[in-house]
Amino acid sequence: MNATPDNEAVLLIADSESSADMLYATGLFVPDPFTYLRVGGRSTIMMSDLEIDRARAQSKVDEVVSLTDYTDRAKTNGKADPRIVDAVIELLRDREVKGVRVPYGFPLGYADKLRDRGFEVAAKEDPFWDERPVKSDDEVAAISEVSRYTEDALRMAFGLLAEADVKDGVLHGPEGPLTSEYIRTRIHVFLLERDCIAQHTIVAGGVQGCDPHNGGSGPLRAGEPIIFDLFPKSTKTGYFADITRTVAKGPVSDAFRRLYDTVLEGQETALSRVRAGVDGQEIHGEVERLFESSGYETGAKDGRMQGFFHGTGHGFGLEIHEPPRISKVSQTLVAGHVVTVEPGLYYPGFGGGVRIEDNVVVTEDGCVNLTRLEKVFEM
Amino acid sequence: MNATPDNEAVLLIADSESSADMLYATGLFVPDPFTYLRVGGRSTIMMSDLEIDRARAQSKVDEVVSLTDYTDRAKTNGKADPRIVDAVIELLRDREVKGVRVPYGFPLGYADKLRDRGFEVAAKEDPFWDERPVKSDDEVAAISEVSRYTEDALRMAFGLLAEADVKDGVLHGPEGPLTSEYIRTRIHVFLLERDCIAQHTIVAGGVQGCDPHNGGSGPLRAGEPIIFDLFPKSTKTGYFADITRTVAKGPVSDAFRRLYDTVLEGQETALSRVRAGVDGQEIHGEVERLFESSGYETGAKDGRMQGFFHGTGHGFGLEIHEPPRISKVSQTLVAGHVVTVEPGLYYPGFGGGVRIEDNVVVTEDGCVNLTRLEKVFEM
Repeated sequence: MNATPDNEAVLLIADSESSADMLYATGLFVPDPFTYLRVGGRSTIMMSDLEIDRARAQSKVDEVVSLTDYTDRAKTNGKADPRIVDAVIELLRDREVKGVRVPYGFPLGYADKLRDRGFEVAAKEDPFWDERPVKSDDEVAAISEVSRYTEDALRMAFGLLAEADVKDGVLHGPEGPLTSEYIRTRIHVFLLERDCIAQHTIVAGGVQGCDPHNGGSGPLRAGEPIIFDLFPKSTKTGYFADITRTVAKGPVSDAFRRLYDTVLEGQETALSRVRAGVDGQEIHGEVERLFESSGYETGAKDGRMQGFFHGTGHGFGLEIHEPPRISKVSQTLVAGHVVTVEPGLYYPGFGGGVRIEDNVVVTEDGCVNLTRLEKVFEM
Repeated sequence: MNATPDNEAVLLIADSESSADMLYATGLFVPDPFTYLRVGGRSTIMMSDLEIDRARAQSKVDEVVSLTDYTDRAKTNGKADPRIVDAVIELLRDREVKGVRVPYGFPLGYADKLRDRGFEVAAKEDPFWDERPVKSDDEVAAISEVSRYTEDALRMAFGLLAEADVKDGVLHGPEGPLTSEYIRTRIHVFLLERDCIAQHTIVAGGVQGCDPHNGGSGPLRAGEPIIFDLFPKSTKTGYFADITRTVAKGPVSDAFRRLYDTVLEGQETALSRVRAGVDGQEIHGEVERLFESSGYETGAKDGRMQGFFHGTGHGFGLEIHEPPRISKVSQTLVAGHVVTVEPGLYYPGFGGGVRIEDNVVVTEDGCVNLTRLEKVFEM
């Protein structure tokens, strides 16, 4: 919790379902905004009557105080209809705090009220908690758990492809043509039954897979790559996994097979370079050079990007995108970083794209791959 | 879009999945933060290359400009590694805007940067869009659509109860004891198959139902009230429904039956009073008086609240809680408000609670009930 040195005060006012920083600090899921204050290394949360007992039982903070108590103090001090920020002001006075450090996304309305009342409020650039990008063993275990469910969901989906019949080039299941929408819903239901929520899941075949923001729609076809990119969040722990596989209902052309093999080689190269102390920029550059030397060029063509035009990887945890990045930007990897390794190649003129994504923990002498799912292109 | 008079500028920087104000202004789901600016009644959004084509096709704003263009201008003006806020500054200069009104929850970090560069930034208290609490016909249709799915999910769940066997007072289905968790997952899957996401769904039997924040857990029992409170959101439209029913696998005691009938009478009383121009405070007071005169007292007992200790209703739409409230606070209803009407009575010492919740549109001479689901206590 080193957002600041121990003698500075840190303040958050947020719910812990949308604010990962709040969830990280408290270990408690609360759907409505509440207050976290840390002074001199001691953490306090201020909770409504409805949540206070659960907060005392479940949160990892040092102290839980009553919102009602501080709201009553605000009333005593002449505030007719006190709001959460008035209770915060009472708490800050009680703790003799004159200034606070807050997250970059702290609500402006609250900040202006605190400043009007004489408090100093300084927004800190992300990451708010300096140590959040480095994951503990418990955090890695939580990510691994979601990974297992994600892999099982992918195996289930690949089973649908394996069993599909091909009619006029289109995949058919027992209920009719296999569409991106149908498989996506099956994946979402599968994950929900395991307490994981997936959104924006990609099941994109052929040229659709060439646009990384296209989730995919319509009937899936044989003989072309289908990109499956799943990044569900556990509703129990709040942690994500982020796994991509590209598969095809075979047979595929030699050109697609070579595209797949090259992306896989790019991923293996990146995986072999990940290590504490290495700059992500170097890893990304090496993948770029491999693709180029294999004849796969990157750049705009006919007004559209093709080749390898996204980063090699990114950190994740309680959010799907966290520091560090493995990209064109210089950022040094540290032991305990959990990052994706996900090179891809996309050629609309070619009829498809390929991306393969694993999740790894950076260690002093390499990395541990958390993703166990097999990599098989043709089925 | 009357957050300000037409000669003032309005600025939002947010994604439109977590910010309902952004979704309301643009009609476009975007998972990453983007910029909305309105000057002199004309609305502009600034989009990344990945989103710009979709934004032009789908958003309801007057103009879509390229984030890359304004980022390039920031570079030309000497900013080495421009961020979204630097592009915003270029856009504001381009449009000759000196000051902006922003939402109460606008990120402090952005506001401080804009102020440092000489712009006036004023946070507006919620609601940011004055007209958002009043729903259009299209919005009511979207809410009605989610309502139908929510009612179907409840009917499915009640079917599980109806078919359950009772062994030693506990409900059993074909797969074993019927638990809150099992039924909740069945409801969530049912809704997900209809493109609705439900979170914090309440399936709480007996005394668990007396704590409105208890989602319910463990085996459900015969002869006691089970509160079902579902508030899913459509992933297609972003709108919520919010429906509660209380049912029991009968027979129940006369005391529970009388509790149910009294809550139903309270709801019918409230529904008959809802009308444009009426103060929600009056409606809430009338329900309170009815419960008291029927012998159901409200207050703390043994350190725990019992009776009717929450509001009679609240507005909702793109968020689950929106203005107005029907509660102890004075707020006048307006035609087009969509509100819940959900009185409840909770007596832990008694072994259970009851809440019944419908959704209505306020009209000039009454209200239209959007909830069609039957109200049957014993099954």
